[in-house]
Amino acid sequence: MANLVDAGALIGDLEQLSQFGRTPEGGVHREAATQDDGRARDWLVGRLRDEGFSIAIDPVGNMFAILEIAGPDAPLVMVGSHLDSQPHGGRFDGPAGVLAALHAALAARAESRRGRITPQQNVCVVNWTNEEGSRFAPSIMGSAVYAGLLPLETALAATDRDGTTLEEALRSIGYLGRDIAPRQVSAYIELHIEQGTALEQARCPVAVVGGNWGTVKYIIDIQGRASHTGPTPMADRIDALLPAATLILRIRELSDRTGGALLSSVGRLDVVPNSTNIVAQTVRLFAELRDRDPARLRAACAELEAFVPTLAVGGVAISVRKPTDRPAGHFDEHLKATIVGEANRLGIDPLHLDTVAGHDAVNLARIVPTAMIFVPSRDGISHNPREYTSDADLHAGSEVLAAVVRTLVAERPA
Amino acid sequence: MANLVDAGALIGDLEQLSQFGRTPEGGVHREAATQDDGRARDWLVGRLRDEGFSIAIDPVGNMFAILEIAGPDAPLVMVGSHLDSQPHGGRFDGPAGVLAALHAALAARAESRRGRITPQQNVCVVNWTNEEGSRFAPSIMGSAVYAGLLPLETALAATDRDGTTLEEALRSIGYLGRDIAPRQVSAYIELHIEQGTALEQARCPVAVVGGNWGTVKYIIDIQGRASHTGPTPMADRIDALLPAATLILRIRELSDRTGGALLSSVGRLDVVPNSTNIVAQTVRLFAELRDRDPARLRAACAELEAFVPTLAVGGVAISVRKPTDRPAGHFDEHLKATIVGEANRLGIDPLHLDTVAGHDAVNLARIVPTAMIFVPSRDGISHNPREYTSDADLHAGSEVLAAVVRTLVAERPA
Repeated sequence: MANLVDAGALIGDLEQLSQFGRTPEGGVHREAATQDDGRARDWLVGRLRDEGFSIAIDPVGNMFAILEIAGPDAPLVMVGSHLDSQPHGGRFDGPAGVLAALHAALAARAESRRGRITPQQNVCVVNWTNEEGSRFAPSIMGSAVYAGLLPLETALAATDRDGTTLEEALRSIGYLGRDIAPRQVSAYIELHIEQGTALEQARCPVAVVGGNWGTVKYIIDIQGRASHTGPTPMADRIDALLPAATLILRIRELSDRTGGALLSSVGRLDVVPNSTNIVAQTVRLFAELRDRDPARLRAACAELEAFVPTLAVGGVAISVRKPTDRPAGHFDEHLKATIVGEANRLGIDPLHLDTVAGHDAVNLARIVPTAMIFVPSRDGISHNPREYTSDADLHAGSEVLAAVVRTLVAERPA
Repeated sequence: MANLVDAGALIGDLEQLSQFGRTPEGGVHREAATQDDGRARDWLVGRLRDEGFSIAIDPVGNMFAILEIAGPDAPLVMVGSHLDSQPHGGRFDGPAGVLAALHAALAARAESRRGRITPQQNVCVVNWTNEEGSRFAPSIMGSAVYAGLLPLETALAATDRDGTTLEEALRSIGYLGRDIAPRQVSAYIELHIEQGTALEQARCPVAVVGGNWGTVKYIIDIQGRASHTGPTPMADRIDALLPAATLILRIRELSDRTGGALLSSVGRLDVVPNSTNIVAQTVRLFAELRDRDPARLRAACAELEAFVPTLAVGGVAISVRKPTDRPAGHFDEHLKATIVGEANRLGIDPLHLDTVAGHDAVNLARIVPTAMIFVPSRDGISHNPREYTSDADLHAGSEVLAAVVRTLVAERPA
């Protein structure tokens, strides 16, 4: 291995970051704009400042850290991911990419200082706000604002379960920024854990990501009527949980009928008042459909949207919103070829995978040439304290990322 | 109407009590041993002390207030209900009975002072801890401890959603008592709102309650595995929400097959981690079955208990507990006849109803002659801010209760 990256420092940095919001099970619980997210950001700012990066915080809390290696007006190669986690999530989903980006930037500077490259571009390491979307919906929020896909005002007005807005939450941790986000970007590259088993099964440390699946997310509100589960005759009940249960099974069936090719899920169900002896007054159900095949996804969505209104019987009212409707897409061919070439030079034959999950890179791809690198997840487990990527795999992926960044900064963008 | 009870004072007292935990919708949110429950108890203590009651608080926080009208060693006629409410519940469920009891006691003393009766017994007004069971399971807890149906230690160790024990919660509001509960009780009478529509439909202000339906409550724990709803292949998911949805529908079906004669419900579903893009790791489902027919209830329970293990497939683990298994029963015939007689003397022909809901009276009936009086609930709505009983109906029920108490205290118990 070429050793552009100081593997020990990278692993040590990840260990440091994992302290913020650490859980007894060894994962992290660090939802967006919480105090623990604030502490993780503060740590990153300190780490970046020590290395000479200059830092800008935009109005949605995205952090841009520029390492100037090609003069003040040179364009930027942007590299990054996110520091926020799912509730009781893992240590790697997000931070692995931010720290690999940091070390790729340092490697590019070191290569320049050694005279091996003459940089034509600077490197910008980015931490996107609220990638996970578990506290504030929708997910991949900060990058959506940056890419012009979501109005800033909408993002800042998003509320968590306690009614706190993202704006208030960012202010409380000191990351409601006033800086203008850098725009002179020639490429965006993101390293992320796979969150699946393909790399592990192929015993391969790196994948180049071809593109993203289509994803449609639904929020379905079911309105019943609260009443006592004892004396209220069955005929007088309007139970919001019954249509919710029917929907959960029907949404699974949409996938089963495709042999699992279309992915479907209901991960969250907010029941009010959620008391043993009160008939459910309201249920808010959060569903997702994902598919690589746009036609099959459209058909499933149409079927679901036609089915939902049929549940509005017996006094039940029901409404559907579609906060996310993300088309399938492809990443940049030149960047993908660069990743494959650099991996090959390191003796790695990368897998070619698509991403099913949303990533900030999917938003960035709408406005700038973008690509992604995956590293393995043990047992495919993610959003779970047992999420794990070996030091060796993380190092291999980071070497590929650093080599790609070194090559890109030495190119004059088209 | 005989006017044993000062209706204005009764309604005024209820208005005062309704301030503690009042919600914008006009209901109350006053779960057991919360600060608002503590404030309501403090108010009641003040009100009772002003009237000359002596008060004992037992180790589970039950409040016993004795009005001595027959000398220190006379037995007790016990009257009462509970001050705690469901989350976002109503103003009448519980407090109506406690205040009617208070005014019945005052009426008995007034009748004694007027020389119309010579009391042979004292009156004990009681507020039972945690009738509702929404914060600490099971419901009708304080009366279960008093009746020897639940160990004190089990009750005090019950935890709420934040892990706070009942013992800690009672201590924090100053109601973890050390007094010995009074035991020399000849009868227990409870006035409560019907929480159904029978009285309203019959345009009748009072029902005598014949007995209680059987009730079985289940807590069903379903264990899946958290994983990312994006990249995780459908075949690798262990989704705890799917068996939960199947169960919700199956539990409803148990009732449908009896034409609604057996009541069934799932009111609460705790989903963990309950995040849009994480497959549900665990679901805890709270179900209830109720029936007046013991054989039909047993059959439904057997069917449910046989069905649950069939859901433990595909990696799902599932376990069932039955925290409540309350047999159907009958209240005391002499007390029921006394209620009917006093109602008739007031020109009321009371309905005869059973109670489907659990009440503290159902526990008391296991150890002492017990009866209940119902007053109407508008539209049958309960556990809801729209819960409502008219002043006239509340007054009529209180007059019947006061007349019954007057008659009982003048009797020497068998």
